[in-house]
Amino acid sequence: MLAQSSLDLISLRNGLGAVPGVRLAGVHAGIKPRKRDLALIAFDAPQSCASVVTTNEVKAAPLLVSAQHLAQSRTMRALVCNSGCANACTGERGERDARATARQAAALLGIAPAEVIVASTGVIGVPLPVDRVQRGLERAAAQLESGGKAALDAGEAIMTTDRVPKLAAYAFYYRDRKYVVGGIAKGSGMIAPNMATMLAFLAMDYPLAASTLADLLREACEESFNMISVDGDMSTNDAVYAFAPASSNGALVPDECAIALRAVCLDLARAMVADGEGATKTLEVRVSSARDTPQARTIARAILNSNLVKTALYGEDPNWGRIVAAAGAARAGLDPRRWALELNGKPWVERGGIELLSEAEAHRELEPATVAVELKLGLGDAEATGWGCDLSRDYVRINASYRT
Amino acid sequence: MLAQSSLDLISLRNGLGAVPGVRLAGVHAGIKPRKRDLALIAFDAPQSCASVVTTNEVKAAPLLVSAQHLAQSRTMRALVCNSGCANACTGERGERDARATARQAAALLGIAPAEVIVASTGVIGVPLPVDRVQRGLERAAAQLESGGKAALDAGEAIMTTDRVPKLAAYAFYYRDRKYVVGGIAKGSGMIAPNMATMLAFLAMDYPLAASTLADLLREACEESFNMISVDGDMSTNDAVYAFAPASSNGALVPDECAIALRAVCLDLARAMVADGEGATKTLEVRVSSARDTPQARTIARAILNSNLVKTALYGEDPNWGRIVAAAGAARAGLDPRRWALELNGKPWVERGGIELLSEAEAHRELEPATVAVELKLGLGDAEATGWGCDLSRDYVRINASYRT
Repeated sequence: MLAQSSLDLISLRNGLGAVPGVRLAGVHAGIKPRKRDLALIAFDAPQSCASVVTTNEVKAAPLLVSAQHLAQSRTMRALVCNSGCANACTGERGERDARATARQAAALLGIAPAEVIVASTGVIGVPLPVDRVQRGLERAAAQLESGGKAALDAGEAIMTTDRVPKLAAYAFYYRDRKYVVGGIAKGSGMIAPNMATMLAFLAMDYPLAASTLADLLREACEESFNMISVDGDMSTNDAVYAFAPASSNGALVPDECAIALRAVCLDLARAMVADGEGATKTLEVRVSSARDTPQARTIARAILNSNLVKTALYGEDPNWGRIVAAAGAARAGLDPRRWALELNGKPWVERGGIELLSEAEAHRELEPATVAVELKLGLGDAEATGWGCDLSRDYVRINASYRT
Repeated sequence: MLAQSSLDLISLRNGLGAVPGVRLAGVHAGIKPRKRDLALIAFDAPQSCASVVTTNEVKAAPLLVSAQHLAQSRTMRALVCNSGCANACTGERGERDARATARQAAALLGIAPAEVIVASTGVIGVPLPVDRVQRGLERAAAQLESGGKAALDAGEAIMTTDRVPKLAAYAFYYRDRKYVVGGIAKGSGMIAPNMATMLAFLAMDYPLAASTLADLLREACEESFNMISVDGDMSTNDAVYAFAPASSNGALVPDECAIALRAVCLDLARAMVADGEGATKTLEVRVSSARDTPQARTIARAILNSNLVKTALYGEDPNWGRIVAAAGAARAGLDPRRWALELNGKPWVERGGIELLSEAEAHRELEPATVAVELKLGLGDAEATGWGCDLSRDYVRINASYRT
């Protein structure tokens, strides 16, 4: 959204399936009872690969194995991701199983095991059924194709409690050539700002060196996946992997490319929030006139993470005190006499407590599916925006019986 | 509980009403439609007073005014607390109203306004109806008495969404004289560990200098009010005030006194968690064999604060992966190969993922109203214990419509 206003980007359907040179498949391998549970992504050419992974001290086996592969191999050729089993807290067996998965995919695609990234999502503490993964990979390898159907299948295969697959893609022109950046992601629960992410797999057909891609990815994540909140928890399996055709020409990156990558990340991040577990509403929090960006981000995240703000939003209760209490609790330097609040662009509360909207007016502003709050700190000219969702009875229902 | 095992404490009914020299009342002043909403506590002798208050940058007017009184007056003689209105984000008017409340109480009791502590709890952003407070104070001053009935009335008058008043008191013998430490508290929502507290008013009849009382209170809070979690939020009004007859003999504190104060704080803290908004279960989390106490506390709090742990507890789902994921997300130095979990004293999971209880056995252990989890880090010999509650559909119901 931000991106489109600043430069010409062309929004595409088909997500990752829109990127030339990328083929995908999503199949039912039998890890889950009925649904698609195994995605395979294959690249026609060797890829630079960059990652942003969870900072949780308990990391799932596929994260550890993928990190080894990234250290061993200069380029990547494929990614395998299963849902239904996180392969976390599974000890040495878990790492053996993750390596076996990479070996199986490599054999089917005629590449080296170290050219395969592996990822998992699902229940912690359960071993990966490698025989089912093997049979699923055989079917997936036979179905690999580009386009929207394949991207939707792959997007569906990585879902946990998500209700819909998440796809995004943008095209840009650079020196009269068209390039595409696309991605798929899964989100829903265990999403916290400024910790790690969820699963997102991104690719483009603009060639980049790995270190350049890493810089672009870090910046894009900072403004997208790191600015969303569903429940403030952080998983053992969170990872974003980005791929671009390998290039030694590291330095040259058109602005359009960085902006398209950010637009894809923003779309996927917002789709995650809109599809947050039990979510009925999306909250956009903008913190403006901040002293600096870190202050604005810290306060935006604190508001988005507050259970009391989330439940008030669910109940359409214009309880602005909870927003201000959450902002003050962040201890990031809020001045209690200076702040002002806007609700969907309308002045709401001024100078630390003077209400400008009536209770009834404010309540009406909370009825739409998307609500925008702006907290003006009155301290400087930095700002940040983040996205969250409400906390509903359904969140509790979903998470009280996730495995049963 | 800890306390009773180490020294002879006598558990008393009547809470704050059990402390000689303390008289209380709780009345309906009309701030709320029907329920008691104004508590008055009066001390026969001048008191040393110590406080632990919220670190939220947005502080309610009564906190600011009480801080001024603590700076002005060496001793205190009374405390006034209303529910139904937080008197927060009410600007200069809020401070005027808080000062007027102190003046009214002082006039009724024949003491100086600066000898009065004021506190408020309820909705943010609404002005305090000082005329109603005045009339309520007149009735309260006429009803002041010691004993259980008065303590229950006062405990009820400070409740917000609490279901029951919270009282605790312990007696100890020192040099053949009996002393009493007692308190009342309100908790329920907006409770977070290691930030601030809620409202708790504590008193004893053992004389202490203010600085000594402050040390005792800080230590007691650290192990009690700072180790509980209901929803991870922090309020603008949280405060603990402790009183003891003023004494210049600062240094001499019998162990029994410190232990009794801690026992009162622990009982009140656990009562808050048991009565957490929508809570159906209490969770005790003990983190043991930690490198040091801060590590143990950080990890215990992270587990207690996790929405995913809370919802799994509500659903009686033995999803230990969420406990470990929350512990790892705290980034306090968990070694993923060493940890072990116990459930209600039974070995549950070992060495990073080996399950020792079956799913059915673990599920049965989650059925009682109190569940104890111990996470052994295998790193050293420090430990910490904290208390939390589950996250239920009722939490969402209560908070979605708090004001309506």
